[in-house]
Amino acid sequence: MIDLEPLKKEAALRAAGLVESGMRVGLGTGSTAKYAIEEIGRRLATGELRGVVGVSTSEASTVLAREVGIPVEPLDPRLLDLAIDGADEIAPNLDLIKGLGGALLREKLTEVQARRLIIIADHSKVVSRLGEKAPLPVEIAPFGFLSTIERLRRIVPGGRLRQPGTQPYVTDNGNYIYDAQLPAQGDIAALERELKGTLGVVETGLFLGMAERAFVASPEGVRELTR
Amino acid sequence: MIDLEPLKKEAALRAAGLVESGMRVGLGTGSTAKYAIEEIGRRLATGELRGVVGVSTSEASTVLAREVGIPVEPLDPRLLDLAIDGADEIAPNLDLIKGLGGALLREKLTEVQARRLIIIADHSKVVSRLGEKAPLPVEIAPFGFLSTIERLRRIVPGGRLRQPGTQPYVTDNGNYIYDAQLPAQGDIAALERELKGTLGVVETGLFLGMAERAFVASPEGVRELTR
Repeated sequence: MIDLEPLKKEAALRAAGLVESGMRVGLGTGSTAKYAIEEIGRRLATGELRGVVGVSTSEASTVLAREVGIPVEPLDPRLLDLAIDGADEIAPNLDLIKGLGGALLREKLTEVQARRLIIIADHSKVVSRLGEKAPLPVEIAPFGFLSTIERLRRIVPGGRLRQPGTQPYVTDNGNYIYDAQLPAQGDIAALERELKGTLGVVETGLFLGMAERAFVASPEGVRELTR
Repeated sequence: MIDLEPLKKEAALRAAGLVESGMRVGLGTGSTAKYAIEEIGRRLATGELRGVVGVSTSEASTVLAREVGIPVEPLDPRLLDLAIDGADEIAPNLDLIKGLGGALLREKLTEVQARRLIIIADHSKVVSRLGEKAPLPVEIAPFGFLSTIERLRRIVPGGRLRQPGTQPYVTDNGNYIYDAQLPAQGDIAALERELKGTLGVVETGLFLGMAERAFVASPEGVRELTR
């Protein structure tokens, strides 16, 4: 069993290397994105970078960014020059499933505004089709959630409410997550529209046509994937 | 100036008259729905009705229903036999705009499950096309709301964030409301799909194809409209 951690860090450094002085950068959430935030902070501290502003996708990343010296501003309508984040599944065309960590809405709202979305992950996240390994997180309103789940099951029969203990998991936005099993075949963009159009659904973890490239850590080293 | 209040009450009594013993009834929110809830309570108290259960669309209606003796249960996937609620605009085909009171998501989640949705309103709410007088409330996530509003303005240019004072109005679900000016022409169902499909949008106040009939209070009396 090869320890992928140094390679995940290497992938994050490659992504952080795309940050230039003066950029507004979307900061992702999770164990790999953490390395990228630390590296941007390091490059600011050495003076290699100046005037970088972070826009964060979670409270945890805001705290880390400030610790390492990246000024953080709230999301506003201006475009971001770059965003760096992890993913739960990466398809060959760089379509993504995100949201296993529960931050899908904030990540999607932030990263849709990025001129370039750069994904960092280990090779276990690369799949031949979305849904191969991971469920698709769908964020839903708590009110009437059982009915919303019934509506969702008419579209994607398999799946279940995310409930780690006796109570449903609650997102940063006060919503619940339904983890849906994607079908093996079908038009994923049409499915995304149908799910998002369902009464009670707030957002899905499908990030289609958004990522520009991915740095993937594998036992052979870091591979760079592009669309 | 005719006082419409007695006629609004009369319209509510007509709607409440459709409630039968043993029914599960969706209870709306607002000044006209209040009369209907009181009347259902009165009919339960006299023994004219038995075994009616209410499913409420707001905290205020839950409190009122319990006060007048209607047992209230949370929404679950079972169908409701009937729902009674007000509306902000009623089109000739009984398509509706709702949500000026801010409860659109809970109302829509509840009333979509009703076998029959009965609307009660005064005649000022009857329009020849939706958007004639009222804005369309669109419930949006607070995170990145300025960007969501920019996306909405590409679809419906006119509109503004609901902000009664210095802070945005917050719904029962912790979200904001964007009040959109509907265009004078166009396919309203396609518009609804486009708005709901917009990143950051939780739900819209368009209730299309849902209402079965409306009791409308006018200076000439109560009119009954059907699809």
